Amino acid sequence: MADAERVFNVARIVTDTYKEGNDVVVVVSAQGDTTDDLIEKANEINPEGSKREMDMLLSAGEQISISLLAMAIEKLGFPVVSLLGWQAGFQTSSVYSAARIKRVNTERIRAALDKRRIVVVAGFQGINRYEDITTLGRGGSDTSAVAIAASMHADLCQIFTDVEGVYTADPRKIPAAFKLEEITYDEMLELATLGAQVLNNRSVEMAKKYNVELEVLSSLTRKPGTKVKEAAKMEKMLVKSVAKDSHVARVSIIGVPDEPGIAFKIFSRVAKAHINVDIILQSIGRDGTKDITFTVPDDKGKEAVTALQEYADMVGAKNLSYTTDVAKISVVGAGMETHEGVAAMMFEALADANINIQMISTSEIKVSVLIAAEDADRAVSAVHRAFFEM
Amino acid sequence: MADAERVFNVARIVTDTYKEGNDVVVVVSAQGDTTDDLIEKANEINPEGSKREMDMLLSAGEQISISLLAMAIEKLGFPVVSLLGWQAGFQTSSVYSAARIKRVNTERIRAALDKRRIVVVAGFQGINRYEDITTLGRGGSDTSAVAIAASMHADLCQIFTDVEGVYTADPRKIPAAFKLEEITYDEMLELATLGAQVLNNRSVEMAKKYNVELEVLSSLTRKPGTKVKEAAKMEKMLVKSVAKDSHVARVSIIGVPDEPGIAFKIFSRVAKAHINVDIILQSIGRDGTKDITFTVPDDKGKEAVTALQEYADMVGAKNLSYTTDVAKISVVGAGMETHEGVAAMMFEALADANINIQMISTSEIKVSVLIAAEDADRAVSAVHRAFFEM
Repeated sequence: MADAERVFNVARIVTDTYKEGNDVVVVVSAQGDTTDDLIEKANEINPEGSKREMDMLLSAGEQISISLLAMAIEKLGFPVVSLLGWQAGFQTSSVYSAARIKRVNTERIRAALDKRRIVVVAGFQGINRYEDITTLGRGGSDTSAVAIAASMHADLCQIFTDVEGVYTADPRKIPAAFKLEEITYDEMLELATLGAQVLNNRSVEMAKKYNVELEVLSSLTRKPGTKVKEAAKMEKMLVKSVAKDSHVARVSIIGVPDEPGIAFKIFSRVAKAHINVDIILQSIGRDGTKDITFTVPDDKGKEAVTALQEYADMVGAKNLSYTTDVAKISVVGAGMETHEGVAAMMFEALADANINIQMISTSEIKVSVLIAAEDADRAVSAVHRAFFEM
Repeated sequence: MADAERVFNVARIVTDTYKEGNDVVVVVSAQGDTTDDLIEKANEINPEGSKREMDMLLSAGEQISISLLAMAIEKLGFPVVSLLGWQAGFQTSSVYSAARIKRVNTERIRAALDKRRIVVVAGFQGINRYEDITTLGRGGSDTSAVAIAASMHADLCQIFTDVEGVYTADPRKIPAAFKLEEITYDEMLELATLGAQVLNNRSVEMAKKYNVELEVLSSLTRKPGTKVKEAAKMEKMLVKSVAKDSHVARVSIIGVPDEPGIAFKIFSRVAKAHINVDIILQSIGRDGTKDITFTVPDDKGKEAVTALQEYADMVGAKNLSYTTDVAKISVVGAGMETHEGVAAMMFEALADANINIQMISTSEIKVSVLIAAEDADRAVSAVHRAFFEM
């Protein structure tokens, strides 16, 4: 779609909602190409420019989007006002490029709604206590939207994305996958960390905390999407979704002394390198040594090995290495809290498909397994079939 | 020059000035192509979008320039902070797209200077009492710079342009034209209205009012430019500059009744159409009628005729018409206040060149004549020779 067409598409969604009698606040992010252009300009001049100036630069992106959307809404004949982050009352922490919303003073939004205006707010941005522009970092615009919905006790916070909702599995890969009508906050959080990047975790966490009902839906098809809400309000399904995360590296350190404090010694070094560890597997000690294997994001595998090299040399470990030739397959569902057998069903499906499980991790509402990357798509099919197609 | 190169050029001017021990506040405007892009986007969506939203959109342009310039200054290793109009304390009237600066609260600029930071301020913009972003309209960035210089009692306000200063005539046309070391505010004002658009009048008027010394110079050559200051402080030259304005239309209404109130009836109609009139010539009455001729900006000629049509019909005027086939040639110089004979010298030069004068207008420091457009360049040469090359 051309830029203008895309803007009018959003404008029509907004004005249709307004015509139904709703007070409408719409939070927009910058157009992707605008942001890319700005980053390119900055990199040409100074790739190490300060984050403060980077926030000043990038926040111009939403400023452009909100004013253009407001003009489109004016063109459709509706009363509208656009507001920058600071005008909309977004007060944030001082950390540039990764600020956290501290509060939203919604007086100005409320005043505009009282005048029956549509309010277009710049997402992703706010001001800190120095009255400097800050940006919220990844997923910032979704978080801005949820923050406004929470502050104003909105009935619903709709998040328009390029997908129609949350599916039982990736519909591009699994033809039998279907869209869920609803999902709990916790399930959504597990799915987000599993690589099904529909919503950013920060926005879901905030929605959960303030009990804001979300709906994930597509701005193109405008069909009902997936509601994200409290568990108490919904019918229980055993499992909601099967997710695949290919951006995983498995790090192994083989033959370390089998003595107390090993895990601490290893993972404190990894943490110091700012690397998040996901699944951890520790072997039973044998011959006075044991093996430790863990997963990290795929782009951190090498760094994790570097962080541990000195330690491995010191204790005379037999081997220290990593591979990205793995994938994590997970099933998520709040229903499994009260039902045993979900893990067993998943393992059975994988066994039937002759897929070897390397590592296992479970939480109250999730079972994850690490398998060879080449088996990943077959694994998702097999597990989806077991839970949803029987 | 490439964009980045241009930004670094400005950054070096700024840091060189800082290295000399000066407190430096630099006011920047948007890059022309950024503004053009934004206007094009707005026009695609809604050519009649509100001015409020247009200001919101366009002010993103300076936001981009200030942050990029700040990053360039950081790259050169100097402490810097960029400030938007509202952060720099620009409070304006409420009129979107043509706001007037009401005051500048310079606390934040001062605080940054006290920390020995270079301060990069977004020109052209401010906020009004509704806390909405406003833009200042034409020449806005120069005016912003002068307003800061005035508020902070700066020693000097340098205005970097694409010319090296103010010349005795257009140096592209008159090879003998030379750069003036200094010029008075009033002379500069006359020159600006005469089509020598080096500085916008609003900024010169403000500089005059608050006695801010200006320097007009080129950001490329970095040679000393032309200082604009109080008359008392400078050596008198009879005439400072010869200017040509080709954007003129001459409107004539022939054969209107020779009775009191004619001028009022005509010019009140022109004023109601928001058309500025420059030179006016009223013939001596003859046969109970007279002729009135006046000049307006060339794009207003047709509108002026339209505004007068009803009146012309009513009084049975013989003819109402306009032509843009004219040019205005002027000499400007505070020196002529105390010297007679400037007008005569100019007329003599034109007569020697066999150029016919259609209309004459004089002020204390200016003589203007209207001539045929085809004679304009020859006229400037002849007049420049008479005043500067003898």
